Amino acid sequence: MNEIELIDTIKNIIGTEFIGDDCAYLKDLGIVITQDSLVENIHFKRDWCTPYQLGYKSIAVNISDILASGAEPKYITIALSLPKSVGSNFVEEFYKGASSALNGAKIVGGDITGSDKDIIVSVTAIGSTKGRNISSRANAKEGYIVITKGNHGSSALGLNELINNRNNSELIKEHLEPKLDINFANRLATSIIENFAMMDSSDGLADALFKIAEASNVKIISDYNKIPHLDIASYEQVMFGGEDYKLVAAIPEKYKDLFSDASIIGKVVKYDGTRLDVSGHKYSTISELNTFNHF
Amino acid sequence: MNEIELIDTIKNIIGTEFIGDDCAYLKDLGIVITQDSLVENIHFKRDWCTPYQLGYKSIAVNISDILASGAEPKYITIALSLPKSVGSNFVEEFYKGASSALNGAKIVGGDITGSDKDIIVSVTAIGSTKGRNISSRANAKEGYIVITKGNHGSSALGLNELINNRNNSELIKEHLEPKLDINFANRLATSIIENFAMMDSSDGLADALFKIAEASNVKIISDYNKIPHLDIASYEQVMFGGEDYKLVAAIPEKYKDLFSDASIIGKVVKYDGTRLDVSGHKYSTISELNTFNHF
Repeated sequence: MNEIELIDTIKNIIGTEFIGDDCAYLKDLGIVITQDSLVENIHFKRDWCTPYQLGYKSIAVNISDILASGAEPKYITIALSLPKSVGSNFVEEFYKGASSALNGAKIVGGDITGSDKDIIVSVTAIGSTKGRNISSRANAKEGYIVITKGNHGSSALGLNELINNRNNSELIKEHLEPKLDINFANRLATSIIENFAMMDSSDGLADALFKIAEASNVKIISDYNKIPHLDIASYEQVMFGGEDYKLVAAIPEKYKDLFSDASIIGKVVKYDGTRLDVSGHKYSTISELNTFNHF
Repeated sequence: MNEIELIDTIKNIIGTEFIGDDCAYLKDLGIVITQDSLVENIHFKRDWCTPYQLGYKSIAVNISDILASGAEPKYITIALSLPKSVGSNFVEEFYKGASSALNGAKIVGGDITGSDKDIIVSVTAIGSTKGRNISSRANAKEGYIVITKGNHGSSALGLNELINNRNNSELIKEHLEPKLDINFANRLATSIIENFAMMDSSDGLADALFKIAEASNVKIISDYNKIPHLDIASYEQVMFGGEDYKLVAAIPEKYKDLFSDASIIGKVVKYDGTRLDVSGHKYSTISELNTFNHF
């Protein structure tokens, strides 16, 4: 059973009020919350990353969701499940890496337990919505432009280096220590007045564009040549690679000049049966995407 | 390396501002937060509990921390890591059990990932502090009384049934589906005006009493005969059994009559080198306790 079927099962039991965006928006408390786990041999391999890098990435993937919601990163809890073979040095390095990815948030608690065999890291991040415009993937409107910043596909290139025992350290760093753009996130969340849509590209750029289009019941047309990426990255890597953690936003066109440092990679148009058109590559259902899916 | 050493390592890196109680109290947001993981073959065995019971307990242990803080349970996120062998029926039953332990909270998100071999459940719970007096284990004062409700040691008796292939279903239920006393928690958090100390007995009654005494720099004298427990429970099970999830609070004596349905099991006195005296059993350091410790 895949993740989409599992999520449908869960929706049937607990309702859909808060299910949709990567963060849940808890209006009465003025916060957003997200929780993500990294599991050894599913999301990472001990041989491929240092404990510092694992700590960094565990926090970064959750802070990225907070930034994509438009909220301000505030607090983090970390639950570590560690096999007996793991010593205090691991924990120390892990926390140093975690501390370097906080982007202003504070680690305020968590849990350490044993584990039979694998390391499991589960992180919860809380963001404050005070003074911020909170995004939703359902907020894109016809006429909006789609913008992003930073190279797509580089994380996939870095992962390829690791898989093939090559050592381009800059590419590997894009995979193991993805940089977050808190400045870009802050500017979006504090300067746009209208509802806007934003996601990170954790599961791939195509996935983010498709999910925004689907949740907003619109179509997104994207010009592949406008998407920032390294020349060596393939279309597959750029569109489906995942784990780049770049922000992708659909915003009113009038803000274009405020974000002149970003790339305008597409526009939002009326839905016509196709959800996403990337320079002629058309996608109508999510299963047509070569989606990054850990399951 | 044990849990205490690991926590010291972490404190050195991230500071101690929020480390101490089971929940972190985030005053600026008006919330408390806690995160706990349950790991297969460390905290539970698939053979011993149904998916429904695992869902129930995963939520209950976190809600219990919220109640012990004095806050109102509000929101839950769940990260499930599941090996491929686990199907949709597991997820459905798990979420039904989880839903039955919410005590007014709502499940608002989380994550489902794969896992090599073991099931790992990591739950985060958020409580609201609005209109509540938030407890801390450091708040006990000389002259306070120590109160509790519900039988201690019954979870250990239930675990014994499972370990020895016996089938006293009432005892097993005390272990797998511990009941939480939200009414008792609400009354404490809304009627006491002074600072007060509260914990749950997740790691054993002796552990809770000792940690309150140590954090408050006082001594607790307890009369074993006043501690509610089943006749068949041993001293070890009552004091060190763990996982009963009963509330233990040190409160001003003047509230005695408000909680006449609870048991007064001890009093707080000046520290004299002993932290905890249970009918002559004296404990001066936490290592003297036969503490319930998963590591």
